[in-house]
Amino acid sequence: MLYPNNIKKDKKSFINYGNRGMSLENLINETNEYYLENDIALIFKKPTPIGIAKVSYNSFGKSIDKAYFKEQSTLDYNGLYKGKYIEFDAKETQNKTSFPIANVHNHQIQHIRNVIKHHGICFLIIKINGMYYLLLGKTFINYIDNTTKKSIPYNFIKDNAYQIYEKYNPPLDYLKIIEKLIKEEI
Amino acid sequence: MLYPNNIKKDKKSFINYGNRGMSLENLINETNEYYLENDIALIFKKPTPIGIAKVSYNSFGKSIDKAYFKEQSTLDYNGLYKGKYIEFDAKETQNKTSFPIANVHNHQIQHIRNVIKHHGICFLIIKINGMYYLLLGKTFINYIDNTTKKSIPYNFIKDNAYQIYEKYNPPLDYLKIIEKLIKEEI
Repeated sequence: MLYPNNIKKDKKSFINYGNRGMSLENLINETNEYYLENDIALIFKKPTPIGIAKVSYNSFGKSIDKAYFKEQSTLDYNGLYKGKYIEFDAKETQNKTSFPIANVHNHQIQHIRNVIKHHGICFLIIKINGMYYLLLGKTFINYIDNTTKKSIPYNFIKDNAYQIYEKYNPPLDYLKIIEKLIKEEI
Repeated sequence: MLYPNNIKKDKKSFINYGNRGMSLENLINETNEYYLENDIALIFKKPTPIGIAKVSYNSFGKSIDKAYFKEQSTLDYNGLYKGKYIEFDAKETQNKTSFPIANVHNHQIQHIRNVIKHHGICFLIIKINGMYYLLLGKTFINYIDNTTKKSIPYNFIKDNAYQIYEKYNPPLDYLKIIEKLIKEEI
């Protein structure tokens, strides 16, 4: 509905190679588009909040002449899956042995606590060592509340997060994991 | 957490008069802030999406030199209430006898259908004749799917929507209605 359908169709000739080199954000956007087109879920990236400093009017309407990026105080993606509220963020690290906690801003940590408190489904999708993991918000919070470390060891992630295996379409089927967790009552 | 607390405290001296003349958007923002501060729900206005045409870099970081407003293809507010997904929009009309359907863009109508399909809680808050009504998405869709009219008569709204009575704090307690509807299984 919201995206041009032909993009996906054109891509079919690249089966198995289509995602190569695609950024984490693009993989997630493609996945969300797949969920939308196949009536699985409604999940969107929130627009980046901006502060507008100067506006002008011309024959095309209102136009922005000066603005600046503001920091997102929530997570980047949210939406709806089978009546349930979903919110998550995508984080990437070049670090091979651990995920730096500072990658998640303080406002976002507070927001994760809030989403958990209000019974939303909340998680991080972490790219580390070329692999993708779904780390539940409560596992993340539980870890940082009980450590003085500044990062989460890769081994902890391997043992406590759920690996998402990249495939052609949808490229990162994170809802498959969420579906399983819902059945097991997260 | 996300808003300066003192704004609300300063306002207490204006009891009963605090909301006078406040726009519908501000009433809703204040209400959402109340829900946030009192741990009732997490509901936010989505940032307006913009298209960025030109960016520059200076000592303060990245700055936007040319951009334009894009149309929101979803509804303006979404969030989380007791694990459930909520999405709504605020619409105002100066018209006294009916609410013009064109106030809700086609993309938004399609999105309302989608949210209903995925079992989200979806509604419009309509200001008409100085009063506020919560019109459920499914009532709205049901009306427009069965009419050739270009607007919804005020009498239909009075009979089929739920009036929200403005009060001091929170100014528009729309979740009170949603809570009741959840209990009755919307």
